Amino acid sequence: MTTILRIAEAARAASRIIAKASVEQRTRALHAIADALDHARPAILAANAQDLAASAELAPAMLDRLRLDDGRLASLGRAVREIAAAPEILGRVEKPETRPNGLAIARVRIPLGVILMIYEARPNVTIDAAALCVKSGNACILRGGREAIHSNRALAEAARAGLVAAGLPADIIQLVPTTDREAIAALVKLDELIDLCIPRGGEGLIRYVAEHARVPVIKHYKGVCHVYVHAAADPATALAIVENAKVSRPGVCNALETLLIDRAIADTFVPALVTRLAGRVELRGDDAVCRLGGGTIQPATEADWHAEYLALILAVRVVDGIGDAITHIERYGSSHTESIVTTDAESAERFLREVDSSTVMVNASTRFADGGELGLGAEIGISTTRLHAYGPMGAEGLTTTKFVVRGTGQIRS
Amino acid sequence: MTTILRIAEAARAASRIIAKASVEQRTRALHAIADALDHARPAILAANAQDLAASAELAPAMLDRLRLDDGRLASLGRAVREIAAAPEILGRVEKPETRPNGLAIARVRIPLGVILMIYEARPNVTIDAAALCVKSGNACILRGGREAIHSNRALAEAARAGLVAAGLPADIIQLVPTTDREAIAALVKLDELIDLCIPRGGEGLIRYVAEHARVPVIKHYKGVCHVYVHAAADPATALAIVENAKVSRPGVCNALETLLIDRAIADTFVPALVTRLAGRVELRGDDAVCRLGGGTIQPATEADWHAEYLALILAVRVVDGIGDAITHIERYGSSHTESIVTTDAESAERFLREVDSSTVMVNASTRFADGGELGLGAEIGISTTRLHAYGPMGAEGLTTTKFVVRGTGQIRS
Repeated sequence: MTTILRIAEAARAASRIIAKASVEQRTRALHAIADALDHARPAILAANAQDLAASAELAPAMLDRLRLDDGRLASLGRAVREIAAAPEILGRVEKPETRPNGLAIARVRIPLGVILMIYEARPNVTIDAAALCVKSGNACILRGGREAIHSNRALAEAARAGLVAAGLPADIIQLVPTTDREAIAALVKLDELIDLCIPRGGEGLIRYVAEHARVPVIKHYKGVCHVYVHAAADPATALAIVENAKVSRPGVCNALETLLIDRAIADTFVPALVTRLAGRVELRGDDAVCRLGGGTIQPATEADWHAEYLALILAVRVVDGIGDAITHIERYGSSHTESIVTTDAESAERFLREVDSSTVMVNASTRFADGGELGLGAEIGISTTRLHAYGPMGAEGLTTTKFVVRGTGQIRS
Repeated sequence: MTTILRIAEAARAASRIIAKASVEQRTRALHAIADALDHARPAILAANAQDLAASAELAPAMLDRLRLDDGRLASLGRAVREIAAAPEILGRVEKPETRPNGLAIARVRIPLGVILMIYEARPNVTIDAAALCVKSGNACILRGGREAIHSNRALAEAARAGLVAAGLPADIIQLVPTTDREAIAALVKLDELIDLCIPRGGEGLIRYVAEHARVPVIKHYKGVCHVYVHAAADPATALAIVENAKVSRPGVCNALETLLIDRAIADTFVPALVTRLAGRVELRGDDAVCRLGGGTIQPATEADWHAEYLALILAVRVVDGIGDAITHIERYGSSHTESIVTTDAESAERFLREVDSSTVMVNASTRFADGGELGLGAEIGISTTRLHAYGPMGAEGLTTTKFVVRGTGQIRS
């Protein structure tokens, strides 16, 4: 535990330096990190091979997340250079205003301080998070998963070398050397040293963090995303969106999990759906859907309406109009992403207004709920709780504003 | 504890209704609350008299905070009507953008949900907080101090009557009927039902909340505000600002507590300060200040640099230039408000850039660190931690944004 405290204290000290670094220096550091990733490629791939060998018994999908190769490393480096090239955030002046007494008031963007990132198998998060923290003037403490520990050490070393090459202290980026949960419990209590914790991973990890935390946590529990096919939907548009949202990448949090079909069009839409997804997606339906599906559909249980399958399974329900669809989403949704398919503008606006998820859509695939697709640049996570950030969160989400007041001797009467 | 859970569940249910209420309905509710305050004036004053009688042994300053009279009630009602008249926040569209694929993206302001407000002696917070929550579409749970319990009950009844008169459920505003700390500990654990807790009061209360909380907390620990009189300060401006910041209302959090004087001008400024504040403010100085003060100044101890006196006492220190001043503030400051007095633009900009408190000023009294003075309208609190809000926080601080995406059938490749 003394190691943990030492890491957090070093991060706090380093955060004061990165916060005052110029945009030129932070940009130079990001390019130096990308360069260091190139130079260290053999060492990183050797470390990754070690992780892969130790995890041979993992599921193929997990192994794929863990694996690094030349192509993936090159694209990691490109992502860092793109972050470097994105518009500067720090020092940005917002809502400037001159008060009747002559005080000139503005809000100015500043870093949060020290970010604690807790994540699981994917080693690329080590570099993505480090680069977003450098961009936004924050120090970061990285705590990756056990499976990726050798890869993460090699990646963090490259990132630290980049900082040093740009004349900044290595301790702006620190990797927790152990992967025990006790280290997490100790870190998330250090609210004098850490400003924000972002856990990314399974629900178990996130609940563990929330339970022990005294530092603020931005949670992303899960994505139980819905598409609602309205009575006035164009069926071809609806089928294309449902297919894309479910099939294009089923293992990610913005994939479709529950499909709601308006009763007015269920007679024709359910058979079309069965035809469209036949042999690719397992459907689990309510009574009406099972009846219309002609015996090909499994009956859904209550658990299916709560499920984040992250697999080629889709829960399907017939609803009685838009009010019923919204009620279903309120009850079972996860505040992530919901989309209505309709040609009726009034229903579209009602859905956008009344559904209070972090991303609400009309006539678009839920797969667009992503920082890059929504124009935020690289994404550090997706928040499904409302404080500070709600929805996809980019570098700006790692900043706040202070009030700057310029006077000429004003006193308050 | 079942009472606590019932209150929080009722607040969650009511939050869904106020979130969907139109601006007309929320405005009508605010005017009805102001009307109800008028009608209930005799009952409120009688309840307040009961509180005052039970607290007769309190310090005069505390009794003054607790006291309501016709004038104070009238100004409470006016404040509610001003909140009603302020610009609408909900539904405001921010950062609209059309992506290359034609998706139209915007962020739209929405309420946070359920706000838990925990406060101490001042009963007017009951109405201020309730009105700001109604304005911003949130439900609120109010837990005031023991001394004000009868006043708070009468005020909350008036606010609830106003909601009902406007056709909204009374449970949008609820007062916790007890004032034991166990109720606080139970409330701040209900992170499925409460979205944000704002504690306002002494450091003990706020630390108690932080220790027990699982809901997000916006903390305002204390205000150890600094004025730094730079070498290039205009002495008359500096004296006026120091006097105003210390003397105009010493019991509030934006009052000056520590004065830093540049060594280059200390020889003349310290004697001028002694003359200006003589007989009104107790000065506690470091060695240099005591020497220059000619025997009239008490020596300061380490504790004085940390002190939030909230009284007519001022800690005074000589510093070696702006770097030393900033280092002192980094070490002893509370992230509240700091002001530099100088005619040198470069030093002013360095101070504004490098001091990372929530409000930083040049040539202005720290007493302007206030929601109303900074143009936010009525203030629900001042945050000295960086997440979600930093510095004075108005109704907008009780909202967040969701992403709204309008497509024409886009799918992700």
